[in-house]
Order: sequence, then structure tokens, then C-alpha cells
Amino acid sequence: MSKNYINIYTLLLCSLMALSCQAQKNIPLDKTKSEVKQVVFDYTNASLFAQTLDDIRTEVDSEIKLGVQVPVPKDMAGGYSHERHKRNFFILQKAGSLFQITCDEKYARYIRNNFAAYAKMYPSLPLHPTDRSYATGKIFWQCLNDANWLVYCSQAYSSIYEWLSERERELFESQLFRPMADFLSVENPRFFNRIHNHSTWANAAVGMIGLVMQDEELIQRALYGLENDGIDPSIVDNDGGYIKIEGQRRAGFLAQLDLSFSPDGHFTEGPYYLRYAMTPFLLFSKSLSINMPDLDIYNYRDNILKKAVYALLYETDAKGQFFPINDAQKGMSWSSREVVSAVDIAYSDFGQDPMLLSIAKIQGRVLLDEAGLKVAQDIDKGLVKPFVHKSIAFVDGADGKKGGLGILRTGGEDSKEICLVMKYAAHGMGHGHFDKLSYSLYDQDSEVIQDYGAARWVNIDQKGGGRYLPENQTFAKQSVAHNTVVVNQRSHYDGKVKSADEHSPEMYFFSADNQKIQSVSAIEYHAYPNHDMHRTMILLKDDKYPNPLLIDIFKVVTSEPSTYDLPLWFMGHLLSTNFNYSSETTSLSVLGVDHGYQHLWKEASGSSDSGQAQITWFGNGKFYSATSSVQPTDELIFARPGANDPNFNLRHDPVFMLRRKQATNTVFASVIESHGTYSPVAEIPINPFSDVKRIEVIYDSDAYTVVEVSDRSEGVWQIAISNLDAGKDKKHQMNIDHKVLQWTGPISVNLTTEQ
Amino acid sequence: MSKNYINIYTLLLCSLMALSCQAQKNIPLDKTKSEVKQVVFDYTNASLFAQTLDDIRTEVDSEIKLGVQVPVPKDMAGGYSHERHKRNFFILQKAGSLFQITCDEKYARYIRNNFAAYAKMYPSLPLHPTDRSYATGKIFWQCLNDANWLVYCSQAYSSIYEWLSERERELFESQLFRPMADFLSVENPRFFNRIHNHSTWANAAVGMIGLVMQDEELIQRALYGLENDGIDPSIVDNDGGYIKIEGQRRAGFLAQLDLSFSPDGHFTEGPYYLRYAMTPFLLFSKSLSINMPDLDIYNYRDNILKKAVYALLYETDAKGQFFPINDAQKGMSWSSREVVSAVDIAYSDFGQDPMLLSIAKIQGRVLLDEAGLKVAQDIDKGLVKPFVHKSIAFVDGADGKKGGLGILRTGGEDSKEICLVMKYAAHGMGHGHFDKLSYSLYDQDSEVIQDYGAARWVNIDQKGGGRYLPENQTFAKQSVAHNTVVVNQRSHYDGKVKSADEHSPEMYFFSADNQKIQSVSAIEYHAYPNHDMHRTMILLKDDKYPNPLLIDIFKVVTSEPSTYDLPLWFMGHLLSTNFNYSSETTSLSVLGVDHGYQHLWKEASGSSDSGQAQITWFGNGKFYSATSSVQPTDELIFARPGANDPNFNLRHDPVFMLRRKQATNTVFASVIESHGTYSPVAEIPINPFSDVKRIEVIYDSDAYTVVEVSDRSEGVWQIAISNLDAGKDKKHQMNIDHKVLQWTGPISVNLTTEQ
Repeated sequence: MSKNYINIYTLLLCSLMALSCQAQKNIPLDKTKSEVKQVVFDYTNASLFAQTLDDIRTEVDSEIKLGVQVPVPKDMAGGYSHERHKRNFFILQKAGSLFQITCDEKYARYIRNNFAAYAKMYPSLPLHPTDRSYATGKIFWQCLNDANWLVYCSQAYSSIYEWLSERERELFESQLFRPMADFLSVENPRFFNRIHNHSTWANAAVGMIGLVMQDEELIQRALYGLENDGIDPSIVDNDGGYIKIEGQRRAGFLAQLDLSFSPDGHFTEGPYYLRYAMTPFLLFSKSLSINMPDLDIYNYRDNILKKAVYALLYETDAKGQFFPINDAQKGMSWSSREVVSAVDIAYSDFGQDPMLLSIAKIQGRVLLDEAGLKVAQDIDKGLVKPFVHKSIAFVDGADGKKGGLGILRTGGEDSKEICLVMKYAAHGMGHGHFDKLSYSLYDQDSEVIQDYGAARWVNIDQKGGGRYLPENQTFAKQSVAHNTVVVNQRSHYDGKVKSADEHSPEMYFFSADNQKIQSVSAIEYHAYPNHDMHRTMILLKDDKYPNPLLIDIFKVVTSEPSTYDLPLWFMGHLLSTNFNYSSETTSLSVLGVDHGYQHLWKEASGSSDSGQAQITWFGNGKFYSATSSVQPTDELIFARPGANDPNFNLRHDPVFMLRRKQATNTVFASVIESHGTYSPVAEIPINPFSDVKRIEVIYDSDAYTVVEVSDRSEGVWQIAISNLDAGKDKKHQMNIDHKVLQWTGPISVNLTTEQ
Repeated sequence: MSKNYINIYTLLLCSLMALSCQAQKNIPLDKTKSEVKQVVFDYTNASLFAQTLDDIRTEVDSEIKLGVQVPVPKDMAGGYSHERHKRNFFILQKAGSLFQITCDEKYARYIRNNFAAYAKMYPSLPLHPTDRSYATGKIFWQCLNDANWLVYCSQAYSSIYEWLSERERELFESQLFRPMADFLSVENPRFFNRIHNHSTWANAAVGMIGLVMQDEELIQRALYGLENDGIDPSIVDNDGGYIKIEGQRRAGFLAQLDLSFSPDGHFTEGPYYLRYAMTPFLLFSKSLSINMPDLDIYNYRDNILKKAVYALLYETDAKGQFFPINDAQKGMSWSSREVVSAVDIAYSDFGQDPMLLSIAKIQGRVLLDEAGLKVAQDIDKGLVKPFVHKSIAFVDGADGKKGGLGILRTGGEDSKEICLVMKYAAHGMGHGHFDKLSYSLYDQDSEVIQDYGAARWVNIDQKGGGRYLPENQTFAKQSVAHNTVVVNQRSHYDGKVKSADEHSPEMYFFSADNQKIQSVSAIEYHAYPNHDMHRTMILLKDDKYPNPLLIDIFKVVTSEPSTYDLPLWFMGHLLSTNFNYSSETTSLSVLGVDHGYQHLWKEASGSSDSGQAQITWFGNGKFYSATSSVQPTDELIFARPGANDPNFNLRHDPVFMLRRKQATNTVFASVIESHGTYSPVAEIPINPFSDVKRIEVIYDSDAYTVVEVSDRSEGVWQIAISNLDAGKDKKHQMNIDHKVLQWTGPISVNLTTEQ
């Protein structure tokens, strides 16, 4: 490890500045920069860089006109002081980049004047008056936002470090940066010493300011954590997550790298939080890669950072929106500022994958540094290749042994996509949902079967100050809010994070080699004490149908008679059913008393004697149907959130629920299809009726489950699953209806015809 | 009037063919065409024409491969036989164009073979078995669709008329066309002899086939109607509309032109139906303009057809979607096939307005005739100008004296639009809604305050065969489903079409000259026996606010103590209120028993002691607020459709309702504003709080009403309305708070500052 740190921005951005200032000769070079290695900095053939520079200059210039604004901290997220301080750190970071590139000292002065205002206020700042966080900050309501401030302001400080006088540096460091770094670490061990995205921000903040200040103590603290944090293992954060993970011995940035990701880069809290955590991971790592090259951070844990960037990008729908698993606000996508950093740094430093350039083009902006310049230049050189989503199974857990996430996709560059996301991952700690073996389904344009996401309006003051709403805990996290089996109307793990954190489902098999028949299967043994749950999902692409069919086979093994609910959160407006139901027409009541059921209005209930329950709905210009094998005693329920929601915090999306009562071993089998389209401009329905006629469980034992799907053109798909042995080469043989059925491997999918 | 009709397609399209066939020399010219005048037909510089030709050739060729399909009529809309016959007439019309342009006889053969199949089936066809229409068809469930068939097939027949043998023509005319023309007229007078879009189709169908067949009797019938229809004046159609309008003496196509439109082209049923009716109006008129030039149909009634086309285009939101007033399916837009015809014919025949070309570009296709060719050529010549929406007041009624529709728009080409549509029109006959003085509000992207539209899924078999659903009558037409005052929970005119048809509101003033202060005001005297209703709406654009404010002043004059409801159908998710309310958390009940209230679940109720009720919601990426002046005894209700809706036919959009109880004369005053934005990608709320602090009615008498709107930056807008005299030059003077207020004209809007 190098003893004389060269701070990252001195090396990177000042070198850019040197040449940009030569290019703009009337702007004088800062005299103190003579020792900096000069590199060619030319953005004439980097239009996205030039465009970004223009946009950011406009933005920062208009802020400079407003003058320094450092209000006394007071508000929750969404309120003035919060949003102003948040805007400050983004603007200061950008002003730093502008100073480096344009050499215009107004940017340096603006940063200095802001720091002076903060340095004046900070020493006497009490804890933020809101007192609503497990780790209350000073500038913001939670330490997390203070850490954001310090990460971005470390960059801004770095940008003007050489320009400042020694006296100014001494002032800022003694009154502001060092006290803040201590506040976020030794004074808040429960915030600093976790394995969690919050602590990643804390570690990076302390480490990055340490690198600029050349403060060895802070750097060591950031990398390796506090030795004795004295954290009570029973303490939880605001989201109900435990501060201390069972058996966790290490903390600090390197421990985050070791423990936050699975070996293939999946982040247990999910992509929404991975996006958020990528900023400190990448910014601090980039600084370390320059200043402490011996640490070889990019190769740490077999390129874990690169893997994490790709995991982030693959865990998106066709439009680049992150799968909203666990706590996640929907709509967040790879166009966010965090992913701009991730894509540019990954392109520049992790092998210049031309697929990344297509995302940078969509983002429409780049980092104002060497990485961003490289991206912009290579786009202008025409090196862009389309980013191709692919079917992929991620493992979960630091050891890769805590289940995972199975993504099956059909389509690709030229055709329309259907994408299944099956979640058999670890619980996701405080942000985890009780959604074992749940799934969501997407097509090219939108959600088909939704994951509700979080009950939260991030940064919207009017909705609980932008924090998680009570309904996040009481509804969005509960099992019934997901597309998975709920036993006896109680959530998985009885809704307890501690138990859920201890176990995870197991992947049983994953097969995506054959684009026409892809499948994923997983088993959950612990969500309920006496019930094993085994779900297998098949994405079946065949020219007989306009789009792939999703076949869902959910087997429950138990000897304990129980009631099972399988919710289907279909997105759209119900058009028809093939069974009779009775609607609640003049009064509505709630579907249950807790575990999320208290939030559901029961709108209708029915049953089917035909063995089949089919619903057809219309959403986003398309017709969809779900066909399920049912028993005459199954209750078929239509419900909708909105009950016990006194502040209108929940969305009123519909759910169809299949309820099977007092059953022991049982199998749920369903097919979901997107079969037609309709535009209100043409008013001509194209293929509005389902292609599927029946789905039946024709055999079920401990060893095997066989399901048949019949379509309207006399095709019958027979799916046979080996329940006990997923060996790829294992041969199976059984008799059904006096016929011998033979296959090799865990699953067989075959088309026959009706007799 | 010419005695020897040259049918329109012989003249227009065959002339095109002649040259296109010269261009493609290996395709032989039909020998019988030698007498046709040859015109230059060259689409090398008409790319949209070439593209359309390609697309339609692909479409028709694939249909030809399927072979002739003429099933026995059986199904409702959405079902196979309906959709197949519907597809047939569109494809046959297109095949006719292709034959004319390409001279490829396969298209002529395909048309002939289809006609042969229809001619074989038709003579023995009974009435359609569904028996659900006031005028049941033979090929379709209603005569209307049979008339569609005959309009399009007249074009197809015209295209191959010369190519057919005399024997074939004789067969088709005697077995198919003439019997169908008689069926749609003399055998169905209640269908043929109305003033209604249905009859327009009937008139055009009979007239167009008459022109091709050179059948003078049919042409006269089409133009002038049946002399003695013997229609019982009490008969209504499926929508509850009367067949016979009081005092109506005339029928036929010319009478439709005289009576369907207001003098400025507004169509009383609204733009959704105008779009539908434009096809027969324009196609038959185009044929008449060529074959019967003496009729001078384009100049008929002072260019009524041209005015209707522009009314259609102006009655759209910024995206070109028709305002869904009266019965209308939302989403229908100027991209529909009917508007392609309207735009191309209007461009070609009504003065070549270059603004129309921009719509043609959006449509992305043109007619395959001379009009479409001209449009495509002129687009390629770069003549396109943007279509600019403008503020405009349409009158209603054939005499222009039945109220109207006031459209106020701010914005235009460069800036974002806010668009108010205030409806004080005539009832709209069977498709009318009980929505006197109602309004809807749009911005650039979407609805802000919605008109519910119709409860109907056009052509979707699963929803009542595509017809109007029962909830259209019981909810969508009722007053409470609109943004207007409802007295004692009973709809305007007690929900009776006959009474509603007899009266209409009166425009009081309309002012759009000053882009910063636009206003519209109208009065309804008859909706309730003892209540006069007077609404004034102001669109106020000021640099103080990010977007224009909509100020709504609704005055009710009565001595009869009554309960008033003013619903606000806001589009989005409620974020906050400035008053306390109590939510129904564990059970919901209906808001009333009839007049639409039976369909509303009451979700919450509150009141305000501050004199102000403000709600803020989030929709489509934007923050909106509505601020209303209220009394402490006013009930503030949140409700949602879905009750008494056993088949899930209604959308569950929210409504906020201000209920004032047992009041006599009263004024409702509100401000609606779009004040901020938020993207889930950036997660940064921009201006999430309302700019409006208060709105107060500070004076109200028979003569004057004065309202003040205070904003958060100490601005106070004072709006004074003269209630009895709308004279533009009339001077007014009154005292308020010992100050003299003077102004000229019906309304004064002034900015003062807080004291």
C-alpha cells in the first residue's frame, strides 16, 4: 500500500483540466498543478460528454446564481432543508468536475464558500431534530444521508484541494470533514459496522475523505471497520433488519465486498438497493485503485465489482427497469444517475464491453471524468452493441448457498420478450419480503404479473416524509402481497425477519439451454414448520402460440390439513371468467385480520365444477389469460388492497386468489398466456381468447408430478417432474394410464395430441 | 344532376391504375378501360403512399392466401363471424384499391369470389339470430354494421365493376346489393330515416351502391330519405335515444348534413361519434362531388363538411385523442382509419391546409387514392406545418342555438399545454350524458381531471359482446360520474333523455383573446326545476406559477334548501389533504341508491374548519392540487366506483366530492394546479407543494360574484363576475370592504398583493 496518497481527483480530473485549459487558452492554469501528468483531453469527438458538460454547466450556473444555501437541518425527506442539503452535495460534486474541466474559478469559489458555511454550522449541530432513525444524522434525518453528503463532498473537496489555501483546508478538515467522519463511524457504530448498504456508504464516505485528507486512520477504519463496536445483537434498524448478522466478525469496506454479494454479484436486498449501493462501492474502489494500487481492488474476490455491475444490469426488465423484488420503488431503472456511474466505470475499467455503450446511449449522459469521456468517444466511434438480456440464474448469499434468483427470458434483440423472475433467494435482511418461491412476469412493455414492490414514496414529504410507510410492513412485505402460496393465511416464517434470515429456499434445477423449453425449480422447507413447498416454472415457446406460455406447478407436501391461498397479482382489468362468481355489490369487508389480509377488500367469490378456473384480463393493450386446475371445493376470490389503509397509501390493483381448503399434499397448476392485442384506435380485437383449454394434474406422488396442458388446437403438453432427484442424467420411468413414460433429467416437457 | 353516372372509383382509381400499369409493363391493362382518362400516377416521391401500399399489399395478400371466408352470421361483436365479416369488408375495399393500382387480377378475383359467396348466402339469410338491436341486421347483429359492409363493398365493387362480366354484375346486384340496399332502407325505416350517425351510414351505403349500380331510385332514396316512414315517435334505440326527433320532417343524406352538425361543424354526439360518422359523410360526398357535380356537395351548407373535419381535429387533446364527452371509448385518436380518410380528403379537396400534413405524418399512412397520393407527395415536398390546437368555442345544435363546447388552451407549439374542455352542449341524444356544465382538464401528456367516458369495451366479446354495458346507463351517463354539481343526489333532468333533449345550457361568455386570462362561462336553467346553475372557469397563466391555474366558480341560485355534490374526478394517487378525514377501514358501503351513487364505494369522509379544503395528488409523473373554499358543515368525501358492478365493468378511479347540505343560493369556488414533477428514476420531487394558499368567495349577490385566490408568495387574484349582464362594454361598479371595484365586461381578473 502506497504511503503517499495521490488523491483520485488530483490524478484524474486535474489531468483532464490541464489539457482542457490548454485548449481554452484564455483560462489560466492553476499554478500549483505543475506536477500533474498531462493527458490528452479532447471531447470534440465525444458528443455525449460535451452534451453532459453543457447540461451540468447550465444546472450548476443557475445554482451559483442562487448563492450558498445551507439551512439549519429540520425537515424529513421531501421537506426543504432535506432537499436543499441533498441538492447541495450533488451540485458541489458537479461544480468540482466543472472546475477541473473548465478551470473556471467560480466553481472552486462556490465549493469553498459552501464548505465554509457547513464548517461554521457543523461543530455546534445537534442530532437532527426528527429523531426517527435508528441512526439519526446531523445534516439529515438519518446518518445514511450524511454519508451520501460526505461521499460526494469528498469528490468536490478533492477537486479543489490544490486550489485551496492550507489554512482553508485545515479549517474544513478540523471543523467539518474529520468530525463528520468520526460521527459516521466511531460515534455511530451501529451505522458504520454493519454488512448493509447503509454501512457501505459510511465506509466509503470515511474512506474517501480519508484519501483526500491523506488520513491513514480514517482509511484503515473505512477498509476494516471498527474493532470493537459493542453492538447489541438484538438491535434492529428502522426496516426491522438486524444490525448484526449472526456470526459476523468483520466489518468495513472489504468485508462489505466479501459479504454483501453472492459470488456471482447478486445483492441480497435486490437490484433497487444494489443500484444505490453501487455508488459507494464503485467510487471508493476507483479511488483505491488509483491511490492504493497494491490493494488491487478491482480484482478483489475474483472481480466481484464487475460481476455486481452485470448482476445489476441483468436484473432489469426489457425497458431497463429493476425487478422490484424486496423493498423497491417501481420505475427505478438503469437510467438513474447511479447506473450512469456504474456503466461508465465498468466500461472504462472492466474491459470495455460494447454492450454497455448502448445503455450509456439510453442514459443520455456520462460521468464528467476520463471514464465518461472514454464512453462518449467510443459511442461516437460507432462501437455500440445492443445490450442483450439473457436467461440467468443468480445464486444468493456470500457463500452462494442461500438460494437465488432465476430469470428466464425468451425473445432477445429482434422479437418481443417474455421474462419470468422467480425468487428463491435469501430473505434480504431488513428490506426482505416474505415471498419465498414467488415470481413476477414481464413482457416487452410492462408487468404482466406484478410484484407489488414497496409501500413507499421515496422523498415525497406528503407520504410519511418519504420513508417506508406502515403498510410496507403490514402489507407489502407479507406473503399474500406476492405470487406464492400462503398457508393458513399466515406469512412465510410467520412474518419474522430473524427466522427468515436463518434459512433460504434451495434451487432444485435451472435450465435455459433450450430456448423453446426453459425451466426453473426450487424448494422451500422452512417457511412453514410442517409444509414443504416445491415450485417449478416452465417458459414454453412454441409456434402454436403467439407468445410463450408460462406453466406454473406448485407442489405442497404436508400431512397437516391446511388452507392454501395462491394469489395472482394480474395487471389489468378483468374481462371474463369461465366460472360463476358472486360479487359483493353493496358492502365490502376485509379478507382477514392480519398478515396482509387485513388490507384486502373481498370483492367476489366463486367456484368451478369443471376442474378449470380461467380468467382473461386486458392490460396495456394486450389480452392475457390464466388457466388453473381447481377442485370443486376451491374458493376463487377476487380481492383488492385498500382496506385498513387510512391514508390512501396502497395502490388498488386487483388480485385473483385460488383458495384450497383443508388439504394435505396438494399441487397447484396454472398456465399464464399473453394471447392477443387490442388498440382503442383500431378497436379491433386480435386473438382475444385463450389458446389454452385445460391444465390438469394427472399424477402426483412423492417421486413424480405429471401435469397436462391442453390447447384449443388439440395439442397436449405433458410435463413430468422428478421431485426427489434433479440429476441431469438420471433416467426416470413410470406408468400413467397403462402407458410407460420415460425421460432423463429432472423434467420432461412433451407435445402430444389429443386422442 | 348527371344522368350517366361515372362511378367514383372508375374515374379516380382506374385512372391511377392506367399509369401505374404502364409503369409496370408486364402487367396487362384491362382492355375494357380504354375510355378512362389517364392521369399521371407516380409515387416515387410519395413515400407514405408507397409505404401504405406495401403494408396493405402484405395484409391483403395474406388474407387471399387464407381463401374466401364467409361464415354463417352468428356472433356478437368480438365473436368470430362478426369479426370475420368486418375484416372482409375492410380487406375487400383494400383489394379494390390494390387492383386499381397494381392491375394484378388476383385482387379482382378475390373480390369477385367473395361477392359470389355473399350473393349465394344473402337471399336466404334470416335476421341475425342475436336479436339484440333496435334494428337487427342480417350479416351482423345490427343494421349499422351491415351498412358499414355496404359502404366499403360499394368501393370494392366500383373498383372491379368494369372488370366483371355483365352476367356477374347482374348476379351480384340482384342477389346481394339491391336486396341489401332495400333491407337497410325501406325494410328498416327506423334505421334509415333518423337524424343520427347510424342513418348516415345507411344513407351513404344505399347512395354509394346506387352510384355504382347507376340506380337512380337508390340515389334519390339516399339523398332524401323515405317519404313515409311510419315511425312511432315513442320508439327509442338501444342507447335510449329517440328515433324521431320532435318536429323532424326530413331524412336522408342532405338532411343529415343539415341537422347533424352545428353551423361550425360540431357534432352533438361528440368527436368520438363524429369520427365514426365522418367516413360515410366524406366517402359518399366524394362520390357525389364527382358523379353529381351540380349538387356541389362540398359547398353544401357553407362548407359544412370542411368545418366538421376541423371541429373533429380541434376536439382532441395535445396527443390527438378525442375528448371522451358523451358515450366515447377513451384512447380513440386522430390516428384512427376514419381520420386518415378525413385528413386526406380534407387536404386534397378542402384547400390543402399544410397543418393537416403533420397529422398525416403522425398517422403514418394515407388513402390509396389521389387524395392520399397528394398528401404523400406534399409531405415529401416538405410542405408540412405543425397542427396548432387553439382555444375555440363551438356552438351546438343545427341552428347553433343549443349551447356548445368551450375549449381553452394555453401553450401551443413550444410550451406545454393545459387544456380545459367545458361542456354546455345539447344533450347528445341517445349517446348524451347528464353532464351539464361539466368539464375535463388535460395537460400535454394526459388527463388531469377526467371525463369517465363510456362504460363499454368496443368489440370486446367478453364485455357484453362489445355493446354498451348496463353500467353505461346506470353510472357513466349519470351526473355524479362527471365534474359538475348534482342536486339532492339526482342526475340532471332526473336522468331522462327526453327532457334533456328539449333544453340545453346557454353560453354566457367566452374569452380567449388574452392568452394569460382566458375564460368561459355558461348557465343551465333546466337541469333541475328550481335551481339555476352558472359556472365560470378561468385559465390563468402567470409567470408566478409553473403552469396555468384553473379557477372554477360554480354558482347555484335557488330558494329551495338542497344538498349539492361537486365531484372532482382527479387522475392519480392521493398524497395529502389539509383537513382531517376518517377512512372506512374494515368495511365499505355504497354512497347512495341510484343515479350513479349506487356504484360508488364511500372510502372516507372529513370536514374542514379552515374554510379551505386542499388535496394534493400524484399522477403521470406530476404533482397536482385542488383547493376549494368550503364551509365547516361541508362534507368532504373520497369515493371510488366498483359497487353494484357484479361483472367488474367499471374502472376504479378515485373521486373527491364536496357535499354542501341544506343550502339555498351558494357558490363553489376551486383552483386546480399542476405544480411539480417527480420521476421514480431521479427520486427528486420538484415543487411538490401547492402554490395556492386560499380561495374565498368574498361577495355573492344576484348581480355579482367576487372570488379571491391567494398564493404562497403574497399574490391575491381578485375575480369579479357580472352575473346578469355579459355585455362586453358594460361598466360595473360595486363596493367591497369599503373599496370601490370597477370593471368593464362580464369578468374582471386582477392581481393584487396581500396586505
